[in-house]
Amino acid sequence: MDQKLTAALLIIGNEILSGRTQDANAAFIGKRLAERGIEFREIRVVRDDKAAIVAALNALRAQYTYVFTTGGIGPTHDDITAECVAAAFGVALEVHPEAYRRLNEYYKKQGSVLNDARMRMTRVPAGGTLVDNPVSIAPGFKIDNVFVMAGVPKIMQAMFDHVETMLGSGTPVQSRTVACNLREGDIAAALEAIQNQFPDIDIGSYPQMWQNPTLKLVARGIDETKLDQVTEMIAEMVRKMGDTPVLA
Amino acid sequence: MDQKLTAALLIIGNEILSGRTQDANAAFIGKRLAERGIEFREIRVVRDDKAAIVAALNALRAQYTYVFTTGGIGPTHDDITAECVAAAFGVALEVHPEAYRRLNEYYKKQGSVLNDARMRMTRVPAGGTLVDNPVSIAPGFKIDNVFVMAGVPKIMQAMFDHVETMLGSGTPVQSRTVACNLREGDIAAALEAIQNQFPDIDIGSYPQMWQNPTLKLVARGIDETKLDQVTEMIAEMVRKMGDTPVLA
Repeated sequence: MDQKLTAALLIIGNEILSGRTQDANAAFIGKRLAERGIEFREIRVVRDDKAAIVAALNALRAQYTYVFTTGGIGPTHDDITAECVAAAFGVALEVHPEAYRRLNEYYKKQGSVLNDARMRMTRVPAGGTLVDNPVSIAPGFKIDNVFVMAGVPKIMQAMFDHVETMLGSGTPVQSRTVACNLREGDIAAALEAIQNQFPDIDIGSYPQMWQNPTLKLVARGIDETKLDQVTEMIAEMVRKMGDTPVLA
Repeated sequence: MDQKLTAALLIIGNEILSGRTQDANAAFIGKRLAERGIEFREIRVVRDDKAAIVAALNALRAQYTYVFTTGGIGPTHDDITAECVAAAFGVALEVHPEAYRRLNEYYKKQGSVLNDARMRMTRVPAGGTLVDNPVSIAPGFKIDNVFVMAGVPKIMQAMFDHVETMLGSGTPVQSRTVACNLREGDIAAALEAIQNQFPDIDIGSYPQMWQNPTLKLVARGIDETKLDQVTEMIAEMVRKMGDTPVLA
Protein backbone atom coordinates (compact mmCIF):
# COMPACT_ATOMS: atom_id res chain seq x y z
CA MET A 1 0.00 0.00 0.00
CA ASP A 2 1.06 3.52 -0.73
CA GLN A 3 1.93 5.83 2.06
CA LYS A 4 0.20 9.09 1.17
CA LEU A 5 2.85 11.57 0.06
CA THR A 6 2.11 15.27 0.43
CA ALA A 7 3.97 18.43 -0.45
CA ALA A 8 3.99 22.18 -0.02
CA LEU A 9 5.83 24.98 -1.80
CA LEU A 10 7.27 28.02 -0.06
CA ILE A 11 7.91 30.87 -2.48
CA ILE A 12 10.31 33.41 -1.06
CA GLY A 13 10.39 36.88 -2.49
CA ASN A 14 9.03 40.38 -2.33
CA GLU A 15 8.94 40.47 -6.13
CA ILE A 16 6.10 37.94 -6.24
CA LEU A 17 4.08 39.80 -3.59
CA SER A 18 4.56 43.11 -5.39
CA GLY A 19 3.22 41.56 -8.58
CA ARG A 20 6.43 42.58 -10.36
CA THR A 21 7.16 38.93 -11.14
CA GLN A 22 4.49 36.35 -11.93
CA ASP A 23 5.34 33.04 -10.32
CA ALA A 24 5.77 30.22 -12.82
CA ASN A 25 7.25 27.64 -10.49
CA ALA A 26 4.11 26.57 -8.64
CA ALA A 27 2.38 25.31 -11.79
CA PHE A 28 5.52 23.45 -12.91
CA ILE A 29 6.02 21.77 -9.54
CA GLY A 30 2.30 21.00 -9.25
CA LYS A 31 2.30 19.17 -12.56
CA ARG A 32 5.41 17.15 -11.77
CA LEU A 33 4.13 16.19 -8.33
CA ALA A 34 0.80 15.08 -9.78
CA GLU A 35 2.63 12.82 -12.24
CA ARG A 36 4.51 11.21 -9.33
CA GLY A 37 1.37 10.75 -7.25
CA ILE A 38 2.44 13.28 -4.63
CA GLU A 39 -0.42 15.41 -3.36
CA PHE A 40 0.36 19.12 -3.66
CA ARG A 41 -1.47 20.63 -0.71
CA GLU A 42 -0.30 24.14 -0.05
CA ILE A 43 1.59 27.11 -1.45
CA ARG A 44 2.82 30.01 0.63
CA VAL A 45 4.40 33.19 -0.61
CA VAL A 46 6.32 35.16 2.01
CA ARG A 47 8.46 38.26 1.82
CA ASP A 48 12.24 38.42 2.22
CA ASP A 49 12.03 38.50 6.00
CA LYS A 50 13.89 36.08 8.22
CA ALA A 51 11.21 35.63 10.88
CA ALA A 52 8.49 35.12 8.24
CA ILE A 53 10.53 32.57 6.28
CA VAL A 54 11.59 30.59 9.36
CA ALA A 55 8.04 30.47 10.73
CA ALA A 56 6.53 29.37 7.42
CA LEU A 57 9.20 26.75 6.82
CA ASN A 58 8.85 25.24 10.27
CA ALA A 59 5.07 25.10 9.93
CA LEU A 60 5.21 23.45 6.51
CA ARG A 61 7.98 20.92 7.14
CA ALA A 62 6.12 19.61 10.20
CA GLN A 63 2.96 19.15 8.18
CA TYR A 64 3.93 17.70 4.80
CA THR A 65 6.12 14.89 3.49
CA TYR A 66 8.11 17.29 1.31
CA VAL A 67 8.61 21.05 1.30
CA PHE A 68 10.09 22.87 -1.68
CA THR A 69 11.36 26.41 -1.52
CA THR A 70 12.11 28.70 -4.45
CA GLY A 71 14.01 31.95 -4.46
CA GLY A 72 16.57 33.79 -2.37
CA ILE A 73 19.68 31.69 -2.96
CA GLY A 74 21.75 34.09 -5.07
CA PRO A 75 24.83 36.13 -4.10
CA THR A 76 23.21 39.44 -3.07
CA HIS A 77 22.32 40.77 0.40
CA ASP A 78 18.61 40.06 -0.15
CA ASP A 79 19.29 36.35 -0.71
CA ILE A 80 18.65 35.08 2.79
CA THR A 81 17.04 31.69 2.21
CA ALA A 82 20.06 29.54 3.19
CA GLU A 83 20.53 31.33 6.53
CA CYS A 84 16.78 31.12 7.21
CA VAL A 85 16.71 27.38 6.54
CA ALA A 86 19.72 26.90 8.84
CA ALA A 87 17.92 28.93 11.52
CA ALA A 88 14.71 26.93 11.05
CA PHE A 89 16.66 23.70 11.62
CA GLY A 90 18.79 25.21 14.38
CA VAL A 91 22.04 24.29 12.63
CA ALA A 92 25.07 26.22 11.41
CA LEU A 93 25.38 27.53 7.86
CA GLU A 94 28.68 26.20 6.51
CA VAL A 95 30.69 26.32 3.32
CA HIS A 96 29.99 23.02 1.57
CA PRO A 97 33.27 21.69 0.12
CA GLU A 98 31.70 20.30 -3.03
CA ALA A 99 29.70 23.48 -3.66
CA TYR A 100 32.93 25.40 -3.21
CA ARG A 101 34.74 23.11 -5.63
CA ARG A 102 32.06 23.50 -8.31
CA LEU A 103 31.78 27.26 -8.06
CA ASN A 104 35.53 27.78 -7.84
CA GLU A 105 36.05 25.74 -11.00
CA TYR A 106 33.16 27.47 -12.77
CA TYR A 107 34.31 31.02 -12.09
CA LYS A 108 37.94 30.12 -12.84
CA LYS A 109 36.94 28.81 -16.26
CA GLN A 110 35.05 32.02 -16.89
CA GLY A 111 38.08 34.10 -15.90
CA SER A 112 35.95 35.45 -13.08
CA VAL A 113 36.44 35.23 -9.31
CA LEU A 114 34.70 33.43 -6.49
CA ASN A 115 34.45 36.61 -4.43
CA ASP A 116 32.80 37.04 -1.02
CA ALA A 117 29.37 37.57 -2.56
CA ARG A 118 29.58 34.38 -4.63
CA MET A 119 30.95 32.52 -1.60
CA ARG A 120 27.45 33.01 -0.11
CA MET A 121 26.27 30.47 -2.66
CA THR A 122 28.64 27.79 -1.32
CA ARG A 123 26.96 27.80 2.09
CA VAL A 124 24.65 24.97 3.08
CA PRO A 125 23.00 24.28 6.46
CA ALA A 126 25.00 21.61 8.34
CA GLY A 127 23.78 18.16 7.35
CA GLY A 128 22.46 19.35 4.01
CA THR A 129 23.30 17.71 0.68
CA LEU A 130 23.54 19.44 -2.70
CA VAL A 131 20.89 19.78 -5.36
CA ASP A 132 22.62 19.99 -8.74
CA ASN A 133 22.31 23.05 -10.91
CA PRO A 134 23.38 22.18 -14.45
CA VAL A 135 22.38 25.63 -15.69
CA SER A 136 24.30 28.11 -13.55
CA ILE A 137 26.23 25.72 -11.26
CA ALA A 138 25.44 27.35 -7.87
CA PRO A 139 23.65 24.44 -6.19
CA GLY A 140 20.47 24.21 -4.20
CA PHE A 141 20.33 21.86 -1.28
CA LYS A 142 18.25 19.29 0.58
CA ILE A 143 18.03 19.09 4.33
CA ASP A 144 15.71 16.54 5.89
CA ASN A 145 12.41 16.88 3.96
CA VAL A 146 13.15 20.39 2.64
CA PHE A 147 14.43 21.06 -0.90
CA VAL A 148 15.83 24.51 -1.54
CA MET A 149 15.86 25.68 -5.15
CA ALA A 150 16.49 28.81 -7.18
CA GLY A 151 13.68 31.18 -8.14
CA VAL A 152 14.58 31.67 -11.81
CA PRO A 153 12.28 29.16 -13.55
CA LYS A 154 14.82 27.63 -15.94
CA ILE A 155 17.21 26.99 -13.08
CA MET A 156 14.49 25.72 -10.76
CA GLN A 157 13.29 23.32 -13.43
CA ALA A 158 16.78 21.94 -13.98
CA MET A 159 17.21 21.54 -10.22
CA PHE A 160 13.88 19.76 -9.95
CA ASP A 161 15.19 16.97 -12.21
CA HIS A 162 17.70 16.15 -9.47
CA VAL A 163 15.21 16.73 -6.65
CA GLU A 164 12.85 14.22 -8.24
CA THR A 165 15.40 11.44 -7.86
CA MET A 166 15.12 11.96 -4.09
CA LEU A 167 11.32 11.80 -3.92
CA GLY A 168 9.08 8.82 -3.33
CA SER A 169 6.10 8.20 -5.54
CA GLY A 170 2.47 7.22 -5.16
CA THR A 171 -0.41 6.43 -7.44
CA PRO A 172 -0.98 9.42 -9.70
CA VAL A 173 -4.31 11.16 -9.49
CA GLN A 174 -6.08 11.13 -12.85
CA SER A 175 -8.58 13.71 -13.95
CA ARG A 176 -11.42 13.90 -16.46
CA THR A 177 -13.09 17.10 -17.57
CA VAL A 178 -16.63 17.55 -18.81
CA ALA A 179 -17.17 21.03 -20.20
CA CYS A 180 -20.57 22.53 -20.89
CA ASN A 181 -22.50 25.78 -21.07
CA LEU A 182 -24.90 25.11 -18.21
CA ARG A 183 -25.05 27.28 -15.12
CA GLU A 184 -23.64 26.03 -11.83
CA GLY A 185 -26.83 26.81 -9.96
CA ASP A 186 -28.86 24.62 -12.31
CA ILE A 187 -26.65 21.54 -12.06
CA ALA A 188 -25.49 21.79 -8.44
CA ALA A 189 -28.02 19.40 -6.94
CA ALA A 190 -27.50 16.69 -9.57
CA LEU A 191 -23.74 17.10 -9.37
CA GLU A 192 -23.74 16.79 -5.60
CA ALA A 193 -25.81 13.61 -5.88
CA ILE A 194 -23.08 12.12 -8.10
CA GLN A 195 -20.37 13.31 -5.69
CA ASN A 196 -22.20 11.68 -2.78
CA GLN A 197 -22.23 8.33 -4.61
CA PHE A 198 -18.44 8.45 -5.14
CA PRO A 199 -16.76 9.70 -1.97
CA ASP A 200 -13.23 8.89 -3.21
CA ILE A 201 -13.68 10.79 -6.44
CA ASP A 202 -13.27 14.52 -6.05
CA ILE A 203 -15.65 16.50 -8.27
CA GLY A 204 -14.95 20.19 -8.80
CA SER A 205 -17.06 22.77 -10.59
CA TYR A 206 -15.17 25.64 -12.22
CA PRO A 207 -17.10 28.45 -13.86
CA GLN A 208 -15.14 30.32 -16.49
CA MET A 209 -17.50 33.07 -17.44
CA TRP A 210 -16.78 34.99 -20.62
CA GLN A 211 -15.25 31.87 -22.09
CA ASN A 212 -16.81 29.11 -24.11
CA PRO A 213 -17.65 26.62 -22.68
CA THR A 214 -18.62 28.50 -19.54
CA LEU A 215 -18.32 25.68 -17.04
CA LYS A 216 -15.81 22.91 -16.44
CA LEU A 217 -16.69 19.95 -14.29
CA VAL A 218 -13.58 18.07 -13.26
CA ALA A 219 -13.43 14.63 -11.65
CA ARG A 220 -10.20 13.55 -9.98
CA GLY A 221 -9.19 10.30 -8.38
CA ILE A 222 -6.90 7.30 -8.60
CA ASP A 223 -9.48 4.67 -9.57
CA GLU A 224 -9.90 4.90 -13.34
CA THR A 225 -12.95 2.68 -13.49
CA LYS A 226 -14.80 4.90 -11.04
CA LEU A 227 -13.52 7.99 -12.83
CA ASP A 228 -14.96 6.72 -16.09
CA GLN A 229 -18.28 6.00 -14.40
CA VAL A 230 -18.42 9.44 -12.82
CA THR A 231 -17.48 11.12 -16.08
CA GLU A 232 -20.25 9.32 -17.92
CA MET A 233 -22.77 10.22 -15.21
CA ILE A 234 -21.78 13.88 -15.42
CA ALA A 235 -22.01 13.80 -19.22
CA GLU A 236 -25.44 12.19 -18.97
CA MET A 237 -26.55 14.85 -16.50
CA VAL A 238 -25.45 17.56 -18.95
CA ARG A 239 -27.41 15.88 -21.76
CA LYS A 240 -30.52 15.62 -19.59
CA MET A 241 -30.28 19.35 -18.98
CA GLY A 242 -30.36 19.92 -22.73
CA ASP A 243 -26.70 20.70 -23.34
CA THR A 244 -23.92 18.84 -25.16
CA PRO A 245 -21.04 17.72 -22.93
CA VAL A 246 -17.51 18.17 -24.22
CA LEU A 247 -15.13 15.61 -22.79
CA ALA A 248 -11.43 16.29 -22.27
CA MET B 1 1.42 59.00 12.03
CA ASP B 2 0.34 56.04 10.00
CA GLN B 3 -0.44 52.82 11.68
CA LYS B 4 1.27 50.18 9.58
CA LEU B 5 -1.40 48.32 7.62
CA THR B 6 -0.67 44.78 6.49
CA ALA B 7 -2.56 42.21 4.48
CA ALA B 8 -2.60 38.59 3.39
CA LEU B 9 -4.48 36.71 0.69
CA LEU B 10 -5.90 33.22 1.12
CA ILE B 11 -6.59 31.55 -2.22
CA ILE B 12 -8.98 28.65 -1.86
CA GLY B 13 -9.10 26.04 -4.54
CA ASN B 14 -7.74 22.76 -5.79
CA GLU B 15 -7.74 24.16 -9.32
CA ILE B 16 -4.88 26.54 -8.49
CA LEU B 17 -2.82 23.80 -6.80
CA SER B 18 -3.34 21.47 -9.77
CA GLY B 19 -2.04 24.14 -12.12
CA ARG B 20 -5.30 23.89 -14.09
CA THR B 21 -6.04 27.54 -13.35
CA GLN B 22 -3.38 30.23 -13.12
CA ASP B 23 -4.18 32.66 -10.32
CA ALA B 24 -4.61 36.21 -11.51
CA ASN B 25 -6.07 37.68 -8.33
CA ALA B 26 -2.89 37.95 -6.26
CA ALA B 27 -1.22 40.34 -8.69
CA PHE B 28 -4.36 42.49 -8.93
CA ILE B 29 -4.78 42.70 -5.17
CA GLY B 30 -1.06 43.31 -4.65
CA LYS B 31 -1.10 46.29 -6.99
CA ARG B 32 -4.20 47.84 -5.42
CA LEU B 33 -2.86 47.36 -1.90
CA ALA B 34 0.45 48.97 -2.85
CA GLU B 35 -1.41 52.01 -4.19
CA ARG B 36 -3.23 52.34 -0.85
CA GLY B 37 -0.06 51.96 1.20
CA ILE B 38 -1.09 48.59 2.62
CA GLU B 39 1.79 46.14 2.92
CA PHE B 40 0.99 42.84 1.19
CA ARG B 41 2.86 40.30 3.28
CA GLU B 42 1.69 36.81 2.53
CA ILE B 43 -0.25 34.62 0.11
CA ARG B 44 -1.44 31.14 0.90
CA VAL B 45 -3.06 28.70 -1.47
CA VAL B 46 -4.92 25.85 0.20
CA ARG B 47 -7.09 23.08 -1.15
CA ASP B 48 -10.87 22.77 -0.78
CA ASP B 49 -10.59 21.21 2.65
CA LYS B 50 -12.41 22.55 5.67
CA ALA B 51 -9.67 21.93 8.25
CA ALA B 52 -7.01 23.43 5.98
CA ILE B 53 -9.06 26.55 5.22
CA VAL B 54 -10.06 27.15 8.84
CA ALA B 55 -6.48 26.74 10.09
CA ALA B 56 -5.04 29.05 7.45
CA LEU B 57 -7.70 31.69 7.97
CA ASN B 58 -7.28 31.74 11.74
CA ALA B 59 -3.50 32.00 11.42
CA LEU B 60 -3.71 34.86 8.92
CA ARG B 61 -6.45 36.93 10.54
CA ALA B 62 -4.53 36.94 13.84
CA GLN B 63 -1.40 38.17 12.11
CA TYR B 64 -2.44 40.82 9.59
CA THR B 65 -4.64 43.92 9.53
CA TYR B 66 -6.67 42.54 6.61
CA VAL B 67 -7.19 39.11 5.12
CA PHE B 68 -8.72 38.59 1.69
CA THR B 69 -10.00 35.27 0.47
CA THR B 70 -10.82 34.32 -3.10
CA GLY B 71 -12.73 31.32 -4.36
CA GLY B 72 -15.26 28.81 -3.13
CA ILE B 73 -18.37 30.98 -2.77
CA GLY B 74 -20.49 29.59 -5.63
CA PRO B 75 -23.55 27.31 -5.48
CA THR B 76 -21.93 23.87 -5.87
CA HIS B 77 -20.98 21.30 -3.22
CA ASP B 78 -17.28 22.18 -3.50
CA ASP B 79 -17.97 25.81 -2.54
CA ILE B 80 -17.25 25.60 1.16
CA THR B 81 -15.64 28.94 1.94
CA ALA B 82 -18.63 30.53 3.74
CA GLU B 83 -19.05 27.58 6.10
CA CYS B 84 -15.29 27.50 6.74
CA VAL B 85 -15.22 31.21 7.60
CA ALA B 86 -18.18 30.73 9.97
CA ALA B 87 -16.35 27.82 11.59
CA ALA B 88 -13.13 29.86 11.90
CA PHE B 89 -15.05 32.60 13.73
CA GLY B 90 -17.14 30.12 15.71
CA VAL B 91 -20.42 31.64 14.51
CA ALA B 92 -23.48 30.33 12.69
CA LEU B 93 -23.87 30.53 8.92
CA GLU B 94 -27.19 32.27 8.26
CA VAL B 95 -29.26 33.40 5.31
CA HIS B 96 -28.57 37.12 4.99
CA PRO B 97 -31.88 38.92 4.23
CA GLU B 98 -30.35 41.44 1.86
CA ALA B 99 -28.36 38.76 0.00
CA TYR B 100 -31.61 36.79 -0.29
CA ARG B 101 -33.44 39.84 -1.59
CA ARG B 102 -30.83 40.58 -4.25
CA LEU B 103 -30.56 37.01 -5.50
CA ASN B 104 -34.31 36.43 -5.44
CA GLU B 105 -34.88 39.55 -7.52
CA TYR B 106 -32.01 38.67 -9.89
CA TYR B 107 -33.18 35.13 -10.65
CA LYS B 108 -36.81 36.22 -10.91
CA LYS B 109 -35.87 38.79 -13.55
CA GLN B 110 -34.01 36.07 -15.44
CA GLY B 111 -37.02 33.78 -15.31
CA SER B 112 -34.87 31.42 -13.28
CA VAL B 113 -35.28 30.16 -9.70
CA LEU B 114 -33.49 30.72 -6.43
CA ASN B 115 -33.20 26.98 -5.80
CA ASP B 116 -31.48 25.25 -2.86
CA ALA B 117 -28.09 25.38 -4.55
CA ARG B 118 -28.32 29.12 -5.19
CA MET B 119 -29.60 29.64 -1.65
CA ARG B 120 -26.10 28.63 -0.54
CA MET B 121 -24.95 31.96 -1.90
CA THR B 122 -27.29 33.89 0.43
CA ARG B 123 -25.56 32.54 3.54
CA VAL B 124 -23.21 34.76 5.51
CA PRO B 125 -21.51 34.07 8.87
CA ALA B 126 -23.44 35.78 11.68
CA GLY B 127 -22.23 39.34 12.12
CA GLY B 128 -20.97 39.58 8.55
CA THR B 129 -21.85 42.38 6.13
CA LEU B 130 -22.18 42.11 2.37
CA VAL B 131 -19.59 42.86 -0.27
CA ASP B 132 -21.37 43.99 -3.42
CA ASN B 133 -21.11 42.03 -6.64
CA PRO B 134 -22.25 44.22 -9.53
CA VAL B 135 -21.27 41.53 -12.05
CA SER B 136 -23.16 38.40 -11.03
CA ILE B 137 -25.05 39.69 -7.95
CA ALA B 138 -24.19 36.87 -5.48
CA PRO B 139 -22.37 38.89 -2.82
CA GLY B 140 -19.14 38.34 -0.97
CA PHE B 141 -18.95 39.35 2.66
CA LYS B 142 -16.83 40.97 5.33
CA ILE B 143 -16.54 39.67 8.85
CA ASP B 144 -14.18 41.41 11.25
CA ASN B 145 -10.92 41.88 9.27
CA VAL B 146 -11.71 39.17 6.70
CA PHE B 147 -13.04 39.94 3.21
CA VAL B 148 -14.48 37.01 1.28
CA MET B 149 -14.58 37.35 -2.50
CA ALA B 150 -15.26 35.27 -5.59
CA GLY B 151 -12.46 33.50 -7.44
CA VAL B 152 -13.44 34.47 -11.00
CA PRO B 153 -11.15 37.47 -11.66
CA LYS B 154 -13.73 39.81 -13.22
CA ILE B 155 -16.08 39.28 -10.28
CA MET B 156 -13.31 39.53 -7.69
CA GLN B 157 -12.13 42.79 -9.23
CA ALA B 158 -15.62 44.27 -9.13
CA MET B 159 -16.00 43.16 -5.51
CA PHE B 160 -12.65 44.70 -4.63
CA ASP B 161 -13.99 48.14 -5.57
CA HIS B 162 -16.43 47.81 -2.70
CA VAL B 163 -13.91 46.18 -0.37
CA GLU B 164 -11.57 49.11 -0.88
CA THR B 165 -14.10 51.52 0.60
CA MET B 166 -13.74 49.57 3.85
CA LEU B 167 -9.94 49.65 4.02
CA GLY B 168 -7.69 52.17 5.69
CA SER B 169 -4.75 53.62 3.87
CA GLY B 170 -1.11 54.37 4.53
CA THR B 171 1.73 56.00 2.69
CA PRO B 172 2.24 54.15 -0.59
CA VAL B 173 5.57 52.48 -1.13
CA GLN B 174 7.28 53.83 -4.23
CA SER B 175 9.75 51.91 -6.29
CA ARG B 176 12.54 52.72 -8.73
CA THR B 177 14.18 50.22 -11.03
CA VAL B 178 17.70 50.31 -12.41
CA ALA B 179 18.20 47.67 -15.07
CA CYS B 180 21.59 46.58 -16.34
CA ASN B 181 23.51 43.67 -17.83
CA LEU B 182 25.96 43.18 -14.98
CA ARG B 183 26.15 39.99 -12.97
CA GLU B 184 24.81 39.82 -9.45
CA GLY B 185 28.03 38.37 -8.08
CA ASP B 186 30.02 41.32 -9.42
CA ILE B 187 27.83 44.06 -7.94
CA ALA B 188 26.72 42.38 -4.70
CA ALA B 189 29.30 44.02 -2.40
CA ALA B 190 28.74 47.54 -3.75
CA LEU B 191 24.97 47.07 -3.68
CA GLU B 192 25.05 45.87 -0.09
CA ALA B 193 27.11 48.91 0.87
CA ILE B 194 24.35 51.15 -0.53
CA GLN B 195 21.68 49.09 1.25
CA ASN B 196 23.56 49.47 4.55
CA GLN B 197 23.58 53.27 4.19
CA PHE B 198 19.79 53.35 3.72
CA PRO B 199 18.15 50.94 6.15
CA ASP B 200 14.61 52.17 5.39
CA ILE B 201 14.99 51.67 1.67
CA ASP B 202 14.57 48.07 0.58
CA ILE B 203 16.91 47.14 -2.28
CA GLY B 204 16.19 43.95 -4.21
CA SER B 205 18.26 42.29 -6.91
CA TYR B 206 16.33 40.28 -9.50
CA PRO B 207 18.22 38.37 -12.15
CA GLN B 208 16.21 37.67 -15.26
CA MET B 209 18.56 35.53 -17.24
CA TRP B 210 17.80 34.98 -20.91
CA GLN B 211 16.23 38.42 -21.04
CA ASN B 212 17.73 41.78 -21.83
CA PRO B 213 18.61 43.50 -19.55
CA THR B 214 19.64 40.54 -17.42
CA LEU B 215 19.41 42.16 -14.02
CA LYS B 216 16.92 44.46 -12.33
CA LEU B 217 17.83 46.34 -9.18
CA VAL B 218 14.75 47.64 -7.45
CA ALA B 219 14.65 50.18 -4.62
CA ARG B 220 11.44 50.51 -2.59
CA GLY B 221 10.46 52.87 0.15
CA ILE B 222 8.18 55.70 1.14
CA ASP B 223 10.76 58.50 1.26
CA GLU B 224 11.09 59.77 -2.31
CA THR B 225 14.16 61.89 -1.64
CA LYS B 226 16.04 58.91 -0.28
CA LEU B 227 14.72 56.75 -3.10
CA ASP B 228 16.10 59.22 -5.64
CA GLN B 229 19.46 59.24 -3.85
CA VAL B 230 19.62 55.44 -3.74
CA THR B 231 18.61 55.17 -7.39
CA GLU B 232 21.37 57.56 -8.42
CA MET B 233 23.92 55.68 -6.32
CA ILE B 234 22.92 52.39 -7.93
CA ALA B 235 23.08 53.95 -11.41
CA GLU B 236 26.52 55.36 -10.60
CA MET B 237 27.66 51.95 -9.37
CA VAL B 238 26.51 50.42 -12.68
CA ARG B 239 28.42 53.08 -14.66
CA LYS B 240 31.57 52.49 -12.63
CA MET B 241 31.34 48.80 -13.50
CA GLY B 242 31.36 49.77 -17.19
CA ASP B 243 27.68 49.27 -18.00
CA THR B 244 24.87 51.67 -18.88
CA PRO B 245 22.04 51.81 -16.33
CA VAL B 246 18.48 51.90 -17.64
CA LEU B 247 16.14 53.68 -15.27
CA ALA B 248 12.44 52.82 -14.99
